[in-house]
Amino acid sequence: MPAMPRLIPLAALFLLAPLAAAAQETPTEREAARDVLKKMDALEKSLDVPGLVAKLTGPNEARDRVITRTEELMKTELLALSDDISTHPEVGFEEARSVQKLTDYLKQHDFDVQVGVGGLPTAFVATYKRNNGSPNLGVILEYDALRGTKGAFHGDQHSAQGPVGIAAAVAVAEYLTLTRTPGSVIVYGTPGEEMMPPNAKTQMHLAHVFDGADIIVRSHAVNATSRPAPGFGTCCLNIVGAKYTFSGAPAHQMTAWNGRNALEAVIHLFNNIDAVRASIRPEARIQGIILEGGVAPNVVPDRTVADFYIRYPDEVYLQQVVEFVDNAARAAALATGTKVKIDHYGKDLDGISEATIAELGFAYMKKFGATNVVETPGKPQGFEETGSVSRDIPGGSITAQSSTAPNHTYEMDADNLTPIGHKGLTVDAQTMAAILFDFATHPEYRTAVKKEFDGLKALFAEYQAALKKAYDVPKVPDPK
Amino acid sequence: MPAMPRLIPLAALFLLAPLAAAAQETPTEREAARDVLKKMDALEKSLDVPGLVAKLTGPNEARDRVITRTEELMKTELLALSDDISTHPEVGFEEARSVQKLTDYLKQHDFDVQVGVGGLPTAFVATYKRNNGSPNLGVILEYDALRGTKGAFHGDQHSAQGPVGIAAAVAVAEYLTLTRTPGSVIVYGTPGEEMMPPNAKTQMHLAHVFDGADIIVRSHAVNATSRPAPGFGTCCLNIVGAKYTFSGAPAHQMTAWNGRNALEAVIHLFNNIDAVRASIRPEARIQGIILEGGVAPNVVPDRTVADFYIRYPDEVYLQQVVEFVDNAARAAALATGTKVKIDHYGKDLDGISEATIAELGFAYMKKFGATNVVETPGKPQGFEETGSVSRDIPGGSITAQSSTAPNHTYEMDADNLTPIGHKGLTVDAQTMAAILFDFATHPEYRTAVKKEFDGLKALFAEYQAALKKAYDVPKVPDPK
Amino acid sequence: MPAMPRLIPLAALFLLAPLAAAAQETPTEREAARDVLKKMDALEKSLDVPGLVAKLTGPNEARDRVITRTEELMKTELLALSDDISTHPEVGFEEARSVQKLTDYLKQHDFDVQVGVGGLPTAFVATYKRNNGSPNLGVILEYDALRGTKGAFHGDQHSAQGPVGIAAAVAVAEYLTLTRTPGSVIVYGTPGEEMMPPNAKTQMHLAHVFDGADIIVRSHAVNATSRPAPGFGTCCLNIVGAKYTFSGAPAHQMTAWNGRNALEAVIHLFNNIDAVRASIRPEARIQGIILEGGVAPNVVPDRTVADFYIRYPDEVYLQQVVEFVDNAARAAALATGTKVKIDHYGKDLDGISEATIAELGFAYMKKFGATNVVETPGKPQGFEETGSVSRDIPGGSITAQSSTAPNHTYEMDADNLTPIGHKGLTVDAQTMAAILFDFATHPEYRTAVKKEFDGLKALFAEYQAALKKAYDVPKVPDPK
Amino acid sequence: MPAMPRLIPLAALFLLAPLAAAAQETPTEREAARDVLKKMDALEKSLDVPGLVAKLTGPNEARDRVITRTEELMKTELLALSDDISTHPEVGFEEARSVQKLTDYLKQHDFDVQVGVGGLPTAFVATYKRNNGSPNLGVILEYDALRGTKGAFHGDQHSAQGPVGIAAAVAVAEYLTLTRTPGSVIVYGTPGEEMMPPNAKTQMHLAHVFDGADIIVRSHAVNATSRPAPGFGTCCLNIVGAKYTFSGAPAHQMTAWNGRNALEAVIHLFNNIDAVRASIRPEARIQGIILEGGVAPNVVPDRTVADFYIRYPDEVYLQQVVEFVDNAARAAALATGTKVKIDHYGKDLDGISEATIAELGFAYMKKFGATNVVETPGKPQGFEETGSVSRDIPGGSITAQSSTAPNHTYEMDADNLTPIGHKGLTVDAQTMAAILFDFATHPEYRTAVKKEFDGLKALFAEYQAALKKAYDVPKVPDPK
Repeated sequence: MPAMPRLIPLAALFLLAPLAAAAQETPTEREAARDVLKKMDALEKSLDVPGLVAKLTGPNEARDRVITRTEELMKTELLALSDDISTHPEVGFEEARSVQKLTDYLKQHDFDVQVGVGGLPTAFVATYKRNNGSPNLGVILEYDALRGTKGAFHGDQHSAQGPVGIAAAVAVAEYLTLTRTPGSVIVYGTPGEEMMPPNAKTQMHLAHVFDGADIIVRSHAVNATSRPAPGFGTCCLNIVGAKYTFSGAPAHQMTAWNGRNALEAVIHLFNNIDAVRASIRPEARIQGIILEGGVAPNVVPDRTVADFYIRYPDEVYLQQVVEFVDNAARAAALATGTKVKIDHYGKDLDGISEATIAELGFAYMKKFGATNVVETPGKPQGFEETGSVSRDIPGGSITAQSSTAPNHTYEMDADNLTPIGHKGLTVDAQTMAAILFDFATHPEYRTAVKKEFDGLKALFAEYQAALKKAYDVPKVPDPK
Repeated sequence: MPAMPRLIPLAALFLLAPLAAAAQETPTEREAARDVLKKMDALEKSLDVPGLVAKLTGPNEARDRVITRTEELMKTELLALSDDISTHPEVGFEEARSVQKLTDYLKQHDFDVQVGVGGLPTAFVATYKRNNGSPNLGVILEYDALRGTKGAFHGDQHSAQGPVGIAAAVAVAEYLTLTRTPGSVIVYGTPGEEMMPPNAKTQMHLAHVFDGADIIVRSHAVNATSRPAPGFGTCCLNIVGAKYTFSGAPAHQMTAWNGRNALEAVIHLFNNIDAVRASIRPEARIQGIILEGGVAPNVVPDRTVADFYIRYPDEVYLQQVVEFVDNAARAAALATGTKVKIDHYGKDLDGISEATIAELGFAYMKKFGATNVVETPGKPQGFEETGSVSRDIPGGSITAQSSTAPNHTYEMDADNLTPIGHKGLTVDAQTMAAILFDFATHPEYRTAVKKEFDGLKALFAEYQAALKKAYDVPKVPDPK
Repeated sequence: MPAMPRLIPLAALFLLAPLAAAAQETPTEREAARDVLKKMDALEKSLDVPGLVAKLTGPNEARDRVITRTEELMKTELLALSDDISTHPEVGFEEARSVQKLTDYLKQHDFDVQVGVGGLPTAFVATYKRNNGSPNLGVILEYDALRGTKGAFHGDQHSAQGPVGIAAAVAVAEYLTLTRTPGSVIVYGTPGEEMMPPNAKTQMHLAHVFDGADIIVRSHAVNATSRPAPGFGTCCLNIVGAKYTFSGAPAHQMTAWNGRNALEAVIHLFNNIDAVRASIRPEARIQGIILEGGVAPNVVPDRTVADFYIRYPDEVYLQQVVEFVDNAARAAALATGTKVKIDHYGKDLDGISEATIAELGFAYMKKFGATNVVETPGKPQGFEETGSVSRDIPGGSITAQSSTAPNHTYEMDADNLTPIGHKGLTVDAQTMAAILFDFATHPEYRTAVKKEFDGLKALFAEYQAALKKAYDVPKVPDPK
Repeated sequence: MPAMPRLIPLAALFLLAPLAAAAQETPTEREAARDVLKKMDALEKSLDVPGLVAKLTGPNEARDRVITRTEELMKTELLALSDDISTHPEVGFEEARSVQKLTDYLKQHDFDVQVGVGGLPTAFVATYKRNNGSPNLGVILEYDALRGTKGAFHGDQHSAQGPVGIAAAVAVAEYLTLTRTPGSVIVYGTPGEEMMPPNAKTQMHLAHVFDGADIIVRSHAVNATSRPAPGFGTCCLNIVGAKYTFSGAPAHQMTAWNGRNALEAVIHLFNNIDAVRASIRPEARIQGIILEGGVAPNVVPDRTVADFYIRYPDEVYLQQVVEFVDNAARAAALATGTKVKIDHYGKDLDGISEATIAELGFAYMKKFGATNVVETPGKPQGFEETGSVSRDIPGGSITAQSSTAPNHTYEMDADNLTPIGHKGLTVDAQTMAAILFDFATHPEYRTAVKKEFDGLKALFAEYQAALKKAYDVPKVPDPK
């Protein structure tokens, strides 16, 4: 889960109110989405997902062999690797040891590995050596730990996502080779899921790392087996991360008029934001910290830095909110005679989720014995936290229960090593393998996924166009 | 005295610390003025003002007749007119009755009167009908009352300035006509001395009302007979009056995001100013009020207005201070999504005072029996409060003691009608008549006044050029 | 409708988003109300309101005579009186002429009138002279006009509420006397519905004016015939009106340190509120204006005043919000060396509405030909805007369509005089008469009303107790 | 020099405007000091300091031997030690190596050394083993380096103060022993002169480390040989250092109302101070930085810290300024629902300087060949930066030119090792030795010093009492 506090793993902080299944959180959004949701309903009905899922999850010996191989890999080697990474946590963009372990394993299983893709030292791509044309089956791995008050720890179980994804990737790759089934397996090692900046997946996507993938699967820890509804959305509002750096001129306190005070500037950035909170729709969440606030009380501070997370339920109005915050910074510089540099360093936006993948995964998770199952679909959301990849490539995030504790807790970290963790992680791996198997072996499933994805993508554009019309900027006349 | 509180005539507010004779109040100004002051000293020495004054104030029968006539006019008619205006106070720009009384009197004494000059309904120019070429002798009258908590009142004795000036003007005009001495007498009725905006004298000056005057005299109430040193300066810092009007967009409180809040804007104007107080030299004085702050608590305010007096010891750095305040307003608008109109509605700046006039007047005041005499010259300052006229035309403000109370008090108002008031006002009139007489009848005096004025004006330009170099704006590098 | 903008009758300001029928607007409230709503449902079912209404609205000759008499009074005299008041608008607490007209009429129809009750010069109580024991039937009249940019106007049709209520009161009183049916009729003249402070009805209630009433009816203009659901709520959040007056010490701008700046204090009141907006639940609405912001820019302001409307969906958390605002004021005074007076001058809170009255009224309105009927019940809310009276006495606000325009518009004012207005007002009067008739003549109806009211009141207390538990104040440890 | 910027040794920052000799910087102070200065003048005249100095600096063989010994110690050993410490800079409170070197040397020269006095690990007292009763002759050493952008460096030449003081102490101690002259020599090692907190000398003084000293001498680098006038004062205003720590409650950004924001609190500390800048006399200097400003933008910051230097020309009004700042912090906590801890961690106040010591030292410096001599006495100020020791014990800070560069520069650091540095440091040592010699051997000199010190101390108390009366707090009436 992205954009969660990096330093204070208090469970209490993360127990957000449960969200309804509809991604539209405001009256304006619901109004704008009305027609789109009708069309989405028609699209979904036309796909007969329940029928498709029933057919795919029926008896299939070949698939069962792949599942068995996946389970075997987990039990014999990869749960041990998961435990090892769990007990050697490394925070985002510093996951050197974890990447070494994961890529060593992949190399041993006939993958070509390229480390440092997308300009990120701990990002990698692993391509199966005997890949055989399309479809291209992608698997995303993660491995960064959380920062806690007692040091790094795997309270979000990213430690397991590498081994889980590798189990599915190896089992499916072996099957394709063995049976000469056309298809390719590519594994993506994506660092720093908890960190922004940079948004690793977005940066990798912009560097064309994911290009060509026809489907991507990934797992994530949860304390209840669940899946999203189809549509577009995100767990925790659309987010822009922004850094504001002010420069002034230093001077001794005794003659402060010979300087320009960058601390006053950054303080007024906050004041200016506070001044317009009531002029911004109340669903917005704008919060910042001061990273640098001056160095000596008797010298006029000539450099200060603030870091903000700016959130809104949709990215259209979010742009207006960001403009308010940017103007707050520009106004702070103007008023104080300082200069400001504005850096929008990262975005987490609505992604797209497909029922063809989510419902199939959900059925398999139950089939493979997942526990604490929530039958009602959750809110639509993409399979990765940035929204950027899932808007271009269909996919699914597989979430079988692997802990009894909430995310981002020491308790969930502990469950990395317990039977409930091992069981859930194995179900995740099996489910990912089953989906990829079906996708490789059933052309009509590929067609259905593509049809749904293309349809949702078009509806998403329609929805955003409707939102753009809904958010008028008030007219301000010239003062007289 | 300009720029004093309009509404609260509490003596306690106005008892400012006595100011030293030097106009330069800051180390920077004193440094910039160093060479200029040396040259000024040389200029003054070259004029031998004491010798000139001794000669002019010596026995002169013609002058004494003019003085006697002045006194007679005061005693028989004009002190009564002064009492009448004192007991019928009218605040600035509403002095209709006072102007009627004064111009009636002037018309009866052969003056042509034009009311409404400079676009100001209660401003006037009265020109003696038998004027006879140059020199042109100007007399400024004032007549606006103060606003007090009990209503308008003449706590600054402007009520007397009309009759005093008229006495001198009539006596001198009669003399010139009678003796066929070349010369003209022009009386300027200037309203609203206490008020800004507009600065009446500046507006009249820009409308060329004072053009052609070779000397201008005027009186003002004080509680100690005094005169300024020669040079440039002002009583109470250079001032810019500025009004900031913000417009937003109205909205109901329940949906405030449909509006833009002009009250938040004006509040941030104040906040932004406060934020840079420490970045502005400490001699600055910036203070404002909120004239309009919204109309109903459940409607987003869409119009607010603030009024500021911005002061600094010199007008060069004052421009930097004004720029800070203007930027504070622009930044407030930028941050709140509102618009701002900036109106610099008035200025009171350094004027020029000449020893040739001030010292002559001082000698005459003592000769005519002025009381409570302060021998040390006061700070240099022009003969009128705006600085604009006294920079272009030589002149003097005559200030014989006319009260025992401080300016802007009910006690000074009462002294309008007592012997101490009547005595001082008569001395003022006599002194003004004597100066004008000397100016009209002594070409060498005119030459000396002109030489001093031209010299001081050149030095003032030199001083301001030096100040401009002294006030660097700190360099602010781009943030990295 | 209370708490609407007093000065800017722009229709656009008042077209708030339609509210759902449930009074609980936040997840916290819905959670707190869960059990209460179940019990409320059981209570309502136990009353069989539909059956009761069907029985009461069935054929009844005596009632029909009362209705006919009501209609006759309207047509012959009271619509004319309504037109007269509509065309002689008087704003709140200045309704002398309107009160004279209304009380003259009441006196002519055998009511004893006491003007000036509750300490309000334009409030009155009119008691029928031949009243005969209980039940006590109350009728509330209103008569204050809106303030518009073109002057006072009856854009909320309060002008009609006096005649409408009187028609019902007189017709019912005549019937009771004629038939010797036990019962009393009391008419309450309540001024300044649009104004706060004071809340006239609350002040009158605290002065025991409404004591003893068993039921109270009142009408109000709308553009759609409707009625509230049973329960507790209010149209537009619970409101506290609060005024903050700061005193400082005056000083001249040149020596501002001899003063204490009350304008800085009031500005920091706003800043302090803005600083905690993100620490307050986002459903809160806090907005203020500056009523007094200093008098002269060169005098340190020594008195300033701000006026706020503080709103939240429920009154329990509202108290926390008010405490934030009060602390913002105290902190502003502390920081600036000034003093503050806090005046919570008025409250509009959740009221209680009863289905036994609302549904009976709704059925009668339809029976009497009301137009533009909305079948779904609206949000629960008391019969008067303050919430104070409706919490202690059952009652109903009768709202047949009397205009095609929204409330608070010039168009609705115009409809005071058109057939659509006259028709709706007559239906209102008939319906009020019918309800009072039924209440006086059907003991089982009185019992049902009382049972419902007592039940709802107890559930309201239970709901508020649950809310109190839900709103924890965060624990703040001592700094180290 | 205290309270200078710790981190940015840009010469430009430190070139403050030259200060006049009078310690009274404001009209209020000059008014309060008027009588005191007259009495001070009388006191000084009664001492005939010029006569005393002439007598003491006349031919004296015994003294000359001590001076020669001092010079010899410098040349043979102690300049080398100074060079060594100069090239091994250690910042305040971390001067372990420097202290080791200095105390080793003292031990080798028969001093008993106690390290860690006053609770400060790098503070020490060294007592000569053969001390012989009173008078007690104290020598203060310093040794902390500056923090520069390129690391620690001795740009204020504290590296030399240890060797310089030791040379004088050893030479005098040897003389007293040799000649059996009564007297004791005590050396005080005082760390962290540049640092606050803690004020090392004040802390040591409160721990009674300096108790019993009859005179204390110390040296300090300058680029012009000079001495202070007698009286009370300080170089750079009286200073209070204050730290404000706020605690709030953490919460996720999505539900910020469950937290209390300590960053908003610290921001409002700054805003509150800015709001009263115009209500504080303009000679005040208040400046702060934010040391901790939150840790993650998506968590409500629950701890923030600000650090301030609060300055005013005198400590009486300084207390009012500090109260403003403390109230700003209290108000910030009150408004934001947070808590604040206020820590006044250090003070630098006016000290007392005696002409009997300063003029004697000045005469000796010239006699020993000091260069770039400024004949006019400087502003009065104590011999150490905190003001606390010099208020209780007479003494002098010896300042012969030891560099051509301003204090706190890399150039001054370089001069530690050049002839100009070595020359000045040797003159310092010789002068200190000569003063101590005279103090030990001339009872009438001791009497004069004591008489002057006691007189000045009494006058200082009188001056502060006068200031207390001068600084009225404005009266603020209750708001109505």
